[in-house]
Amino acid sequence: MDRMSLNSRRKRASHAARAAGVDALLVTNLPDVRWLCGFTGSSAALVLPCPSPKSSRPPARAVLFTDGRYIAQAHAEAVGTQVVIATKPPLTEACEWIASAAIKRCGFDQTQTTVAALANMRKAVPAKLRHSLFVALDPLVAGLRQIKDADEIAKLRAAAALGCKLFDRILTFIQPGITEMAVAAELEHAARLAGAEGMSFETIIASGERSSRPHGHATMARLPRRGFVTLDFGVLLDGYCSDMTRTIHIGRASAEERNAYDAVLDAQETGLAAVRAGAITGDVDEATRSVLRRAGLAQWFTHSTGHSLGLQIHEEPRLAAKRTEKLKAGMIVTIEPGIYMPGKFGLRIEDTVLVTRSGCEILTPSPKAWIEL
Amino acid sequence: MDRMSLNSRRKRASHAARAAGVDALLVTNLPDVRWLCGFTGSSAALVLPCPSPKSSRPPARAVLFTDGRYIAQAHAEAVGTQVVIATKPPLTEACEWIASAAIKRCGFDQTQTTVAALANMRKAVPAKLRHSLFVALDPLVAGLRQIKDADEIAKLRAAAALGCKLFDRILTFIQPGITEMAVAAELEHAARLAGAEGMSFETIIASGERSSRPHGHATMARLPRRGFVTLDFGVLLDGYCSDMTRTIHIGRASAEERNAYDAVLDAQETGLAAVRAGAITGDVDEATRSVLRRAGLAQWFTHSTGHSLGLQIHEEPRLAAKRTEKLKAGMIVTIEPGIYMPGKFGLRIEDTVLVTRSGCEILTPSPKAWIEL
Repeated sequence: MDRMSLNSRRKRASHAARAAGVDALLVTNLPDVRWLCGFTGSSAALVLPCPSPKSSRPPARAVLFTDGRYIAQAHAEAVGTQVVIATKPPLTEACEWIASAAIKRCGFDQTQTTVAALANMRKAVPAKLRHSLFVALDPLVAGLRQIKDADEIAKLRAAAALGCKLFDRILTFIQPGITEMAVAAELEHAARLAGAEGMSFETIIASGERSSRPHGHATMARLPRRGFVTLDFGVLLDGYCSDMTRTIHIGRASAEERNAYDAVLDAQETGLAAVRAGAITGDVDEATRSVLRRAGLAQWFTHSTGHSLGLQIHEEPRLAAKRTEKLKAGMIVTIEPGIYMPGKFGLRIEDTVLVTRSGCEILTPSPKAWIEL
Repeated sequence: MDRMSLNSRRKRASHAARAAGVDALLVTNLPDVRWLCGFTGSSAALVLPCPSPKSSRPPARAVLFTDGRYIAQAHAEAVGTQVVIATKPPLTEACEWIASAAIKRCGFDQTQTTVAALANMRKAVPAKLRHSLFVALDPLVAGLRQIKDADEIAKLRAAAALGCKLFDRILTFIQPGITEMAVAAELEHAARLAGAEGMSFETIIASGERSSRPHGHATMARLPRRGFVTLDFGVLLDGYCSDMTRTIHIGRASAEERNAYDAVLDAQETGLAAVRAGAITGDVDEATRSVLRRAGLAQWFTHSTGHSLGLQIHEEPRLAAKRTEKLKAGMIVTIEPGIYMPGKFGLRIEDTVLVTRSGCEILTPSPKAWIEL
């Protein structure tokens, strides 16, 4: 990570924290830590001092607390951040440091801090600070992470492009009789060789009747001579997730299958057309849902239209019924309507898009036209 | 999962919950949910009513709350459990159900419940119950999960055996000049084809000077003509994790490298010899550490000796300095001392073992003798 982007993120976080009435932030959610200081290890507590701009104190550096496994890595990754290798649990040492740094009100993310962790935080500081020092906040860093900066958009674009390349490649591999697991193995192997550090979620290869399971992970089931195969997969590339779904058909389809595909594709494209800065998340959900309603298929669309993604595969805001958030330029969201008819078949079509002022840019431009192998 | 094992687990959890003074348990940690009812989906809240045996009420079934993506899967997997497809967030509906079921004190795991989730739980129930209904407990299901039952031991044994098979296979693939990523890709591809649903953590392939990073994930770095290669990897097979580390040497080693290897191997075998039911976790850590201390290498052993594993790669108890838990028969733990000399080299040797009354059974019997490729 370049130091400029990290500095800019920490500056925005400091500003937001001051606006929330605290003079420091304690960050323990690992993707938030990574976003703020570049550290990718599995053990971390980050303290971001954010004194008032009027304060006479010099702007303090952020302090990362981690453990002995990460000595070299923390110093290499967390540029512009002070690193402390803790001998106690990193969270405990972070709290002791906060208490000793004359911080009066330290915010923490109440959606990422367990009841037990909060009790431990309080135990780590002098009794007189116990009930005033730590202030429960709504997700503040996660809120900033909703709008991706240039560095993140480049990484998400690269991850999505790799996903598309893998989809093209896997089409030449798919044939009746091979197992869903073999398809997943081939896809994931190619992802790894292309530099992915892993998959962003367990690969879904759901074939034949199994396509009626929205989350049908690859099994030892063999691809049928006739039927749908849903492929929903994502790579993790340089920390960022890709996510796309295509559904293909092996052999001749029935009219019902073909009509269902056309309806889902129509819903997906209608959803894409509804995305732009200022659009309401619930309205985008309604856009896809209403197409399926008109086709008499809405009862089989049992999940929401999409979600945001970035360092994590599921981020806020979600694109779901009754949600009222406004989309903003720089958000990255999926549009993924699907239908699932138990005992029969299912299908889903999903793109990842970058929200722009006038609409969206599709980051996963793999073909969506009907494919019959 | 077979219904008998699940019934037995729920019975033990009910008993423990009653002993903790509550008449129901609310379980939201996904591995705990899976362990109690077999459901593997990503959205779940499980309520386990546990009325006193003297109660006149019939023993109530556990109730699993999930969402519309998991209709078929929840009914198929959660045998012996009532399934509710929630339209609100599953946790909210679970709390409403608890309030309506005349449960007086419902325990929750305070290490798995965020401050915000607890606030939402309280909001979901009538005001008069808000401050009495939910009772913060220490991890109760995770505590039961420390001792693996026959079903789990069989699955952990199979996962570990697959790990060993993969290690044998990858030895024939490793040569100077290929990338760490290519080694990881080959290993993971073979794991998938053998039925693994994924890896239990991001594969560590750390070669040459990079071997001095305890958590050196595979990169595009090429294997050197001379130097160590540390391979630390685990599969996820039928939900259960494997974990093993071997360090091999490419080309002729220096006397320093060879001596370091012998010392770590001695430490690892001394650690294994210290494992038995009744042994103290901190003493097992001290057993490995003292060998490295005598060899003058203890300063480079910067992590703890091991951890438990099961449905998750890191479970309690840990085998670390000053820890005082007693090992019990049926626990599955790793013994993995290592040394990391920044700028020079590092190495680690790790087995996964089943704790028995008289010692331990090594589940990862791949050779540990010096390998020079």
